[in-house]
Amino acid sequence: MGHKELSFASQAAPALPGDSIDHVDTPALLVDLDAFEDNLTRVHNRVLQAGLKVRSHGKAHKSPAIAHRQLAAGATGICCQKVSEAEIFVQAGIQDILITNQIVGLRKVARVAALAAHAKIAICVDHPLQVEQIGDAASKQGSHLDVLIEVDIGHQRCGISNAHQAIDLARTIEQYSPHLRFAGIHAFRGSAQHMRLPQERAAAVSSAVEKVRGIIRELEASDFHCDIVTGGGTGTYMLEASSSLYTEVQPGSYVLMDTDYAANTPAADSPPLRHALFGLCTVISVQAGHAVLDGGLKAFAVDHGLPRLQLPGWSVQTLSDEHTVIVPEVGAAPVHVGDKVRLIPSHCDPTVNLHDWLIAYRGQTVQEAWPVSARGALF
Amino acid sequence: MGHKELSFASQAAPALPGDSIDHVDTPALLVDLDAFEDNLTRVHNRVLQAGLKVRSHGKAHKSPAIAHRQLAAGATGICCQKVSEAEIFVQAGIQDILITNQIVGLRKVARVAALAAHAKIAICVDHPLQVEQIGDAASKQGSHLDVLIEVDIGHQRCGISNAHQAIDLARTIEQYSPHLRFAGIHAFRGSAQHMRLPQERAAAVSSAVEKVRGIIRELEASDFHCDIVTGGGTGTYMLEASSSLYTEVQPGSYVLMDTDYAANTPAADSPPLRHALFGLCTVISVQAGHAVLDGGLKAFAVDHGLPRLQLPGWSVQTLSDEHTVIVPEVGAAPVHVGDKVRLIPSHCDPTVNLHDWLIAYRGQTVQEAWPVSARGALF
Repeated sequence: MGHKELSFASQAAPALPGDSIDHVDTPALLVDLDAFEDNLTRVHNRVLQAGLKVRSHGKAHKSPAIAHRQLAAGATGICCQKVSEAEIFVQAGIQDILITNQIVGLRKVARVAALAAHAKIAICVDHPLQVEQIGDAASKQGSHLDVLIEVDIGHQRCGISNAHQAIDLARTIEQYSPHLRFAGIHAFRGSAQHMRLPQERAAAVSSAVEKVRGIIRELEASDFHCDIVTGGGTGTYMLEASSSLYTEVQPGSYVLMDTDYAANTPAADSPPLRHALFGLCTVISVQAGHAVLDGGLKAFAVDHGLPRLQLPGWSVQTLSDEHTVIVPEVGAAPVHVGDKVRLIPSHCDPTVNLHDWLIAYRGQTVQEAWPVSARGALF
Repeated sequence: MGHKELSFASQAAPALPGDSIDHVDTPALLVDLDAFEDNLTRVHNRVLQAGLKVRSHGKAHKSPAIAHRQLAAGATGICCQKVSEAEIFVQAGIQDILITNQIVGLRKVARVAALAAHAKIAICVDHPLQVEQIGDAASKQGSHLDVLIEVDIGHQRCGISNAHQAIDLARTIEQYSPHLRFAGIHAFRGSAQHMRLPQERAAAVSSAVEKVRGIIRELEASDFHCDIVTGGGTGTYMLEASSSLYTEVQPGSYVLMDTDYAANTPAADSPPLRHALFGLCTVISVQAGHAVLDGGLKAFAVDHGLPRLQLPGWSVQTLSDEHTVIVPEVGAAPVHVGDKVRLIPSHCDPTVNLHDWLIAYRGQTVQEAWPVSARGALF
């Protein structure tokens, strides 16, 4: 029935090192290496100078090539959100991973416990059942894991909410299995990252720090020591870094950026990061009053709004599964079938997750094609 | 630097044939085979009895396993939206493919022309440059392609808009290269599929038919014969099938369905299709007033709204990258960490594109794990 002998380029990279960026096949994601490296160096230096560790979040880029650059720039390790993501990063040689999530289900805990035999793995919990599942799996596997208690600092998603719960859970961690170690607190608030004004973000982090500090005080009073206090993202990392409480921060989007993060007003002492991630599309149809690009909802996530077109006088009107319709202002220069145009994604994480490749370039030349190895790693 | 010797389950299917559906790892997509087969049989029988061909759209499922079932149920061939999709389906043994899109760019036309040496391939055009690019590539490759002229019937995306343009373009197709054959008209309006009332959809298709009929009349008067008139989707296929104009229809979502299509009021003679596609998630955290599932924006597309939870008394509040927060009505039965729940996707095409596997089950038992082989085929 099949043509097993046939082999097509279906999964090949849209460009190779040395190609001109004009020859990248579309729709593709480009990474401007100058901007990427600026962002990487600036954020890491600020955090390291403040005396904290950087644990870059791999969920934003899903690419071991980027993780290795983050480690080379001083990151302690990376964060993942999924067990299967962590597997892919460990396989690529990353040795220190925090899974910033609750891991529930016997298949998943068995995989985490197996992974912990090959790398330093930490996970988060907010319920005794999670501790029991991972404890049983680690005992069976003979591996050891660090366990962080997640505290809800206003995100209203996962996390315990008071010291009483924290002490009970720390006790469960310490008593349930000698394969688990209570290592500290995970306190991250996604919604704080996107508050537009610096004073809003400062107030959110300040209130989080107060809450976490109170919980830690009571944990210490019950002889549970918090080695690690981790959290903070691209929008707030310097607030956590100057809190005298957090020991590490977890920025993810900072190396790539997107229009949603760029819409934040930066703090006075914090120049804005640069857009390093761009969608590249080809104009495939030109009509009276609009033109059509060859990438749509399967190339750009729209949960944080439409991608922003970088073409003077033109803007994005709508996206459908495979197309983006763009429209001109009066007097805009015409576009032509075959033209290539760039768009800045509105939300980098789910956009990168739609692509198998990131095309890293400098100037006009492709330097590397980075596989998005953990693309679609959902489990 | 890497652990090349390590091998983890990262890309493995979340279930195997014979597994209970209670043991499917999450977040996963399930396909209810009874509903799937009902939808398949019902739509194909209605179209075939009306004397038209069914050319199922592969962009909805991206899975050769489904395409082969569509062919076995009488489909003539499939539609694809992308060259790389078509490559994957040809490699899986599908021999007759219409790419319902304009193919622009020298790399892409070279790939289409190469593919046409192995299978019957048709493409769409709305501009002479597209004809020239594919004509040159087919001549170089020595392959032959059918070329359809796309007519804009109200979608305001791609497509020519009058008979004059159609005749010019048909002449270009016939004259530019002996490797191209003018084969007819592609006339599809995505927006008509989701008009809620049957009379709205009927009016849209009626006006499209009138426009296309006028263009075909003038093409025939200039000696350009239209073998193929193709279009119509899950929302309108029976309208095109009873038009005495279309020769084939292109439904895609019909086998899987989603909440957006289910929100259409069906025509009186057309009982609604069944939901066959379900997201399966695990409750990973339970808090006062809400609970959290282990799949978010990377498991469910939200461009057509939030997925619909199938859990009495609970509803979806919000999705973030990796989580879905669900909230109870007063008096709803509690959920527990580890519970598995189902959600109906709002838009099947971009949701399937987020997953590497479709888990086909019957009753309580997994029958097959279908790879979404063309997942992410963007080029």
